[in-house]
Amino acid sequence: MGDRIPVGIVGASGYGGVQLVRLLLDHPLVDIAYMGGSSSVGQNFSDLYPHLGHRLNLTIENLEPEAIAERVGVVFLSLPNGIATTLTPRLLAKGCKVLDLSADYRFENLQTYEEWYRIPRHDGETNARAVYGLPELNRDRLVGADLVGCPGCYPTASLLAVLPLLKNGFIDPHSIIIDAKSGTSGGGRKGEINLLLAEASNTLSAYGVARHRHTPEIEQICSMVSGQELYVQFTPHLIPMVRGILATVYARLRDPGLIQDDLLTIYRSFYRNCAWVRVLPKNVYPQTKWAAGTNMCFLAVEVDSRTDRVIILSAIDNLMKGQASQAVQCLNIMMGWPEDTGLPNLSFYP
Amino acid sequence: MGDRIPVGIVGASGYGGVQLVRLLLDHPLVDIAYMGGSSSVGQNFSDLYPHLGHRLNLTIENLEPEAIAERVGVVFLSLPNGIATTLTPRLLAKGCKVLDLSADYRFENLQTYEEWYRIPRHDGETNARAVYGLPELNRDRLVGADLVGCPGCYPTASLLAVLPLLKNGFIDPHSIIIDAKSGTSGGGRKGEINLLLAEASNTLSAYGVARHRHTPEIEQICSMVSGQELYVQFTPHLIPMVRGILATVYARLRDPGLIQDDLLTIYRSFYRNCAWVRVLPKNVYPQTKWAAGTNMCFLAVEVDSRTDRVIILSAIDNLMKGQASQAVQCLNIMMGWPEDTGLPNLSFYP
Amino acid sequence: MGDRIPVGIVGASGYGGVQLVRLLLDHPLVDIAYMGGSSSVGQNFSDLYPHLGHRLNLTIENLEPEAIAERVGVVFLSLPNGIATTLTPRLLAKGCKVLDLSADYRFENLQTYEEWYRIPRHDGETNARAVYGLPELNRDRLVGADLVGCPGCYPTASLLAVLPLLKNGFIDPHSIIIDAKSGTSGGGRKGEINLLLAEASNTLSAYGVARHRHTPEIEQICSMVSGQELYVQFTPHLIPMVRGILATVYARLRDPGLIQDDLLTIYRSFYRNCAWVRVLPKNVYPQTKWAAGTNMCFLAVEVDSRTDRVIILSAIDNLMKGQASQAVQCLNIMMGWPEDTGLPNLSFYP
Amino acid sequence: MGDRIPVGIVGASGYGGVQLVRLLLDHPLVDIAYMGGSSSVGQNFSDLYPHLGHRLNLTIENLEPEAIAERVGVVFLSLPNGIATTLTPRLLAKGCKVLDLSADYRFENLQTYEEWYRIPRHDGETNARAVYGLPELNRDRLVGADLVGCPGCYPTASLLAVLPLLKNGFIDPHSIIIDAKSGTSGGGRKGEINLLLAEASNTLSAYGVARHRHTPEIEQICSMVSGQELYVQFTPHLIPMVRGILATVYARLRDPGLIQDDLLTIYRSFYRNCAWVRVLPKNVYPQTKWAAGTNMCFLAVEVDSRTDRVIILSAIDNLMKGQASQAVQCLNIMMGWPEDTGLPNLSFYP
Repeated sequence: MGDRIPVGIVGASGYGGVQLVRLLLDHPLVDIAYMGGSSSVGQNFSDLYPHLGHRLNLTIENLEPEAIAERVGVVFLSLPNGIATTLTPRLLAKGCKVLDLSADYRFENLQTYEEWYRIPRHDGETNARAVYGLPELNRDRLVGADLVGCPGCYPTASLLAVLPLLKNGFIDPHSIIIDAKSGTSGGGRKGEINLLLAEASNTLSAYGVARHRHTPEIEQICSMVSGQELYVQFTPHLIPMVRGILATVYARLRDPGLIQDDLLTIYRSFYRNCAWVRVLPKNVYPQTKWAAGTNMCFLAVEVDSRTDRVIILSAIDNLMKGQASQAVQCLNIMMGWPEDTGLPNLSFYP
Repeated sequence: MGDRIPVGIVGASGYGGVQLVRLLLDHPLVDIAYMGGSSSVGQNFSDLYPHLGHRLNLTIENLEPEAIAERVGVVFLSLPNGIATTLTPRLLAKGCKVLDLSADYRFENLQTYEEWYRIPRHDGETNARAVYGLPELNRDRLVGADLVGCPGCYPTASLLAVLPLLKNGFIDPHSIIIDAKSGTSGGGRKGEINLLLAEASNTLSAYGVARHRHTPEIEQICSMVSGQELYVQFTPHLIPMVRGILATVYARLRDPGLIQDDLLTIYRSFYRNCAWVRVLPKNVYPQTKWAAGTNMCFLAVEVDSRTDRVIILSAIDNLMKGQASQAVQCLNIMMGWPEDTGLPNLSFYP
Repeated sequence: MGDRIPVGIVGASGYGGVQLVRLLLDHPLVDIAYMGGSSSVGQNFSDLYPHLGHRLNLTIENLEPEAIAERVGVVFLSLPNGIATTLTPRLLAKGCKVLDLSADYRFENLQTYEEWYRIPRHDGETNARAVYGLPELNRDRLVGADLVGCPGCYPTASLLAVLPLLKNGFIDPHSIIIDAKSGTSGGGRKGEINLLLAEASNTLSAYGVARHRHTPEIEQICSMVSGQELYVQFTPHLIPMVRGILATVYARLRDPGLIQDDLLTIYRSFYRNCAWVRVLPKNVYPQTKWAAGTNMCFLAVEVDSRTDRVIILSAIDNLMKGQASQAVQCLNIMMGWPEDTGLPNLSFYP
Repeated sequence: MGDRIPVGIVGASGYGGVQLVRLLLDHPLVDIAYMGGSSSVGQNFSDLYPHLGHRLNLTIENLEPEAIAERVGVVFLSLPNGIATTLTPRLLAKGCKVLDLSADYRFENLQTYEEWYRIPRHDGETNARAVYGLPELNRDRLVGADLVGCPGCYPTASLLAVLPLLKNGFIDPHSIIIDAKSGTSGGGRKGEINLLLAEASNTLSAYGVARHRHTPEIEQICSMVSGQELYVQFTPHLIPMVRGILATVYARLRDPGLIQDDLLTIYRSFYRNCAWVRVLPKNVYPQTKWAAGTNMCFLAVEVDSRTDRVIILSAIDNLMKGQASQAVQCLNIMMGWPEDTGLPNLSFYP
């Protein structure tokens, strides 16, 4: 184990954190050397998650950035929005690389962040160093980065669906509608009534219609890629399942002559070097559980010649490609390791 | 029980059938006098559904229209598409009223039916007598009708969502996108692999993208109401739950000045006399299980001023308002009974 | 509505409370005239449960027993254990009848209560007036009662399974093992991590092994019926479903010559006058959802001649026969109304 | 890949088969060189399971034992009961090692098999070569074995729970009651009505009470270990979840002085060299999903001093330790490879 790099996880007790722990335990080039938290300080991690007790014996410690930076070279931050902004500058100053799983370092324009998250920001310089951690878009910029703002779960599924269309100018950029569906683990490990099994099981509902915070994150990247300001219509739904996001994306084709075969060719070409994006054969629609426990994104592309619309179906595991495993993918790229190190690509089905 | 009308159910062993049985057992003005089927002929109904055994002791019998018509005055047909077309003329000829739950009598234009269902039709005259059984649209025509084509589950949820917009000309009729989500009972009581709990649980997927048969049914009514031919974009999804449909409907407002309050007023006015449609207060989004076991449709109306779109959320129980209880609602109207006779409007929550 | 009796519900915002509201809205002889709570005082009930908004417009009020007693003749208490003991004497003193859904009035021996619930009791006199509200056991004592301690959910399912065996002395009273399984709504409307869908879905576990508080409640009744002190082995499990309890009960037969037919005869005879208990035919095992939304208990009786054991399967809806509808059944008996007034006996399946 | 051993999977399209495929794709010492089936011959495996399409490109072929034996050195048989008996002798004759996942080679006494499975047997000699593939019991006998009868899912969970008690003579051998709960994937990939999500979701029931075929399998091993013929009471239940088995095992202690600490010590000692069995700390009860996608068995041990009974909770993944991964564990031992080669021990939670 001499060659393993010591890494730390702050906020390990949440769902993002426990995925990171799970993944990093099987990652051959890192060693979990520090776990930090707040409400669970002093607890052994395996008291919170006994299913890991045969592999792990670590206590959750206080958050003291300088002390952390002495023990580890890389830190994953998995905290509520706003907290990373105080920890990150201090970690970076000590030479620690930071991968932040919150929304704090996803926005180039901090005014947008302040408007949608209602948290004031005074760390513009730090923010300017951050790379948006969607490897399929920013692989080159991630190499050697020291601060990564890992994408939100909905933006990951949504952007992988629309990037090939926007990049090639195939769609009316103002026509994008994203009807997204997520398992309840996306709400986090919080004792909220609406996330109880008794409430959320055997039912379905929308939430945050026309005002979910992932909207500006999606718009930022779409605008950048298409070269013009655009709005997307984004509607999230809560699905009675634990993990998974399916984004059903609608857009109007600029050239009604385009057929499904054309678009499949374009998508396959666009993702040729992306091992984690699988463009499915015709008439095969992805199930979210195909991606469960993996870093995969499954895409299906359909064209409706009656309406001149393209419909893209994009399925990921919200806690993996939508959160923790994508962060590990970024780490691999940052460190110059093979991009697939320690990352699963096969789910257990059914 | 002297005043009860004898009714028959053909196809009682399926999910639509057992809902009808359940509802009619508690309906004070009818008496289930006949149950017909094919594969289950000779079986006692309570061997199929033991949870009804303390209330029902009927055997499933052969289908002989003339014999049926001698015993009952009203027949519900709950059969695979195409079969009702042979039974209905013979039942009508004997003076029996018919409520058909299949797609057979939903289309004014039989060519559309033939194209989408791939079943040839030679019963134009019978078809011309059929009334489309959406009471909120066709209440007047249902009074005294003798043949009702009961709407599909997705069309019911979708049409109740868009009718007020189309009727008032508030939206671009070519902009309608319906992203619909259904519990697996919509697939019927058939031993299909993709409907197994092991396959359909803890996951989510789309199906029939751009070619589901409920599309032309929705388009027929929307075109009629808006006074112009239109196409809708309709995408169904399979949700890991038993019952319920949520339709998330998007459309572009013609007048971007319209605000949510305006539309709420319009919807409340449109459904003023419709006890089964509840327009929810602002910021309350319907859960499908609020409608479970009831004839209710819950609607939420949202406007996105950034995109000039209206988003409607429409929740029903697919087997009730989307199938069996709506048929009973039609029966009540046909017979001149109070429209709410025998129809539940309160679900058991959670 | 002149003949309806005004009733009150205290603790209406919980799962037991909302079942009571749902049932009493459809009960022809009562009128919900008061709703009390603590944390939700001042809220309109339909803000908590919008699916009832078309039928109900009541605000949750403070708890002032004397004021309550002036407005209603009957009060249902659906509160955490221990609170009813302070309210009940004051309500009874004002002539109010009380049905308590907590554990407070279930025990004849208050020492047992104090040991298992760790709550001291000083209301022995009031407690002595309480009748244990299992109508199948205590129907006669319920007539005219003014205080009912409604049974726990697990005891209801368990006792209905074993009473015929114990009453007739057919089993070794020390051999009873109850392996019980409950939906998560039994844990109440509380934001607890282990009841989240993300935690409790797609999994299964036991809890409170050898120390669940329903154990002494079951033992009290079993001991009384069998005429000797006995212990039962009781193990509850949390099942990934919303509602329902299945109790699988094992006991050793005293007379190994008894066969299944004998026991079926005995069970049917025992429950001859009990409309809410259905003894199923041979080889039919109850599903919990057959009882969902009803006051039914479904029982199956099996004998294993290899082991000389009887196995009883008992299925109820934990929130209905296991809580709210059984309370309404008790009310009907107390008031001398037909026992089935306002009580559903048909579930919606599937 | 020169050192990998070519292996074959017969019956790959079922749930056991697809687990094997999933596991063997990540196993560093084998190569899937053949896939056989019957109804799906000619289909590409990734048409059945598209989520594996980026890793696998194999067509399902006919079953011709001699041809198979020329291509692979090891065959997994995952077929309906009875079919392995005709294939196995021919495969063995050609030098192929066989791991059978059906019930065919689990019984020393073929008369027991014939009685419970109603399939006549004439392959006593072949059967005599079979080793019962529970490594925690038979590790030594598996080394170098050429035919393994892999245990049933329920027997695996049940036996790991009771073996330490029986081996040490701590319990009355006639007092064992196993109340087992399984996800619906245990019923296989078959289009059966009772396994539909619409039927099996949000409910719970027992099945095969007092006559499930796993009973004699459990009894055979328990009798052997305890040195006396015994019967166990075994009751399986269908749980609304995809994977997982929880066995709740009850037995009466011979020495009522034994306390929980004693038994925990005994269990830990018994499984000291078994990496796949984790005895949990006091008051921690296993959840089935802790084992999902792994070869782990989690055990909790509880003593009820009031009743002198021990209660063991045993959780596994029915398709993994209960089927496919246990077969791979056996393969590792047969071949002299490290026992944990290619076997996951960390689930993804939640």
